[in-house]
Amino acid sequence: MDFSNKVSIKEVGPRDGLQNESEMVPTDAKIEWINMLSDSGTSYIEISSFVHPKWIPQLKDATEVAKKIKRNPNVTYAALVPNSTGLERALEVNIDEVCLFLSASETHNKKNINKSIADTLPVLESVSTESKKANKTVRGYVSTVFGCPYEGDIDTDKVISICDKLLTMGVDELSLGDTIGVADPAQVAKVLEELLRYFPKEKLAMHFHNTRGTALANVLVALDYGITNFDSAVGGLGGCPYAKGASGNLATDDLLYMLHRMGVVTGINEKNIIEAALYIEKYVKNLSSNQMKILKSER
Amino acid sequence: MDFSNKVSIKEVGPRDGLQNESEMVPTDAKIEWINMLSDSGTSYIEISSFVHPKWIPQLKDATEVAKKIKRNPNVTYAALVPNSTGLERALEVNIDEVCLFLSASETHNKKNINKSIADTLPVLESVSTESKKANKTVRGYVSTVFGCPYEGDIDTDKVISICDKLLTMGVDELSLGDTIGVADPAQVAKVLEELLRYFPKEKLAMHFHNTRGTALANVLVALDYGITNFDSAVGGLGGCPYAKGASGNLATDDLLYMLHRMGVVTGINEKNIIEAALYIEKYVKNLSSNQMKILKSER
Repeated sequence: MDFSNKVSIKEVGPRDGLQNESEMVPTDAKIEWINMLSDSGTSYIEISSFVHPKWIPQLKDATEVAKKIKRNPNVTYAALVPNSTGLERALEVNIDEVCLFLSASETHNKKNINKSIADTLPVLESVSTESKKANKTVRGYVSTVFGCPYEGDIDTDKVISICDKLLTMGVDELSLGDTIGVADPAQVAKVLEELLRYFPKEKLAMHFHNTRGTALANVLVALDYGITNFDSAVGGLGGCPYAKGASGNLATDDLLYMLHRMGVVTGINEKNIIEAALYIEKYVKNLSSNQMKILKSER
Repeated sequence: MDFSNKVSIKEVGPRDGLQNESEMVPTDAKIEWINMLSDSGTSYIEISSFVHPKWIPQLKDATEVAKKIKRNPNVTYAALVPNSTGLERALEVNIDEVCLFLSASETHNKKNINKSIADTLPVLESVSTESKKANKTVRGYVSTVFGCPYEGDIDTDKVISICDKLLTMGVDELSLGDTIGVADPAQVAKVLEELLRYFPKEKLAMHFHNTRGTALANVLVALDYGITNFDSAVGGLGGCPYAKGASGNLATDDLLYMLHRMGVVTGINEKNIIEAALYIEKYVKNLSSNQMKILKSER
């Protein structure tokens, strides 16, 4: 096993976590919570989504959240942006990084974005170009890379083609999502083996879900391939939209436990992350991390 | 990553799982359940424990269980045996394999067995010798290899010395336990690196707990070191005795999901294991596997 001793964790709880909660967390609580995360030593927080509120009402307060949080100069504050209207809103509140998203599965993309992949790409290209003009970095989420709830296995060539298009339009980093948490370590090795023939490892981040318990094993393989960027959500927030009650996003606290014990430096204080998980726990249903289960047992 | 395409899974649910349940499962249910497991394609089931019933009342029916289960000739039926009285009972019902146990931590051993390690070893040696005379194979559980709830880190030299003594007294296989589920993949690599200098990999099995979510990542590393024997419990049965509500034994169903998807052959039918988990779920509290959470979401 050969791995970098430094890893960047991108905290996606406030966006990917909260968008899967049935109830909206009060805006003031979100702000206080994000401020706690800002003080944890993390270098990156995806704070919300500028999609139309009718699609994700839980995040309809994106503008207010972005305006009222205390900005830590060491943190990149990112948000999801689906189109030019969303970008306008994101730029108004001076978001640091713009996150685009599409799916590697045609069916999933249609169900999620209401457009074919071919029709999504020009929209993303225009958002990317405008973001760059505004001196923003751009991140591209590619979902269902390791399997789709509708189509099953996804051809890696399709993933490569989409990644190539995103990088060509100026995207700075790709986050490869195991949206339904089906990936196994051998598959992660196989997919990365292929992708790294075309793309430098610095351009890739992994976004694993722990639905079937394999997320940390998958992280381990990605580390071995030189990947140093990982997405995760405080407390395993958000659950799985395709299996209610199951785990969704890899929990930041579980990821930190493994990485820190392995001697990998993240810059993040585990205690602060646990405090942030305990804080948001009052407002949500779906905390599923192992560290939170242990904490609850000690109460 | 380099791993064997064939792995043996040792099902410890009926012993290690049920001994951590607060209520005793009715004997008839245990028997039917073990019969289901016998038909799953598994090659090994640890069916009970011949410790004194006052210590583990949940398993006081070991003799009746052993007598009444239907023996599949392809399955090794094992049981925990603490001393010569236990061995007598185990031999009476013709158990195939005798499992000894002790801890790599002095304090944990004292709390668990009420003896020092030095005082435990001669007892185990006598049980091992008598088992061999009765043509039984012998397995040795070494617990707290990766950390102790009382002593913290355990010196690997201590583990090596205990393993050496067990093998010298004729033990056929050692099961190295992460009793409180603290191990991380780098630690597993480090410990195996040392152990494999002294012992052939065929003599070692890994017994991981998933308390902090790292069990499958730890399995992956052990696979990479050529280990092909892993303990697990159907449905993640049993929980963690040191953190109520947290996960304990690595779940057989989660392990099968990962291994089979990686192309590793176990001979075990996943559907049968899920059926066995659904069966025992009626009697227990602590099913914590990811596969069971997904199943529940689909009901």
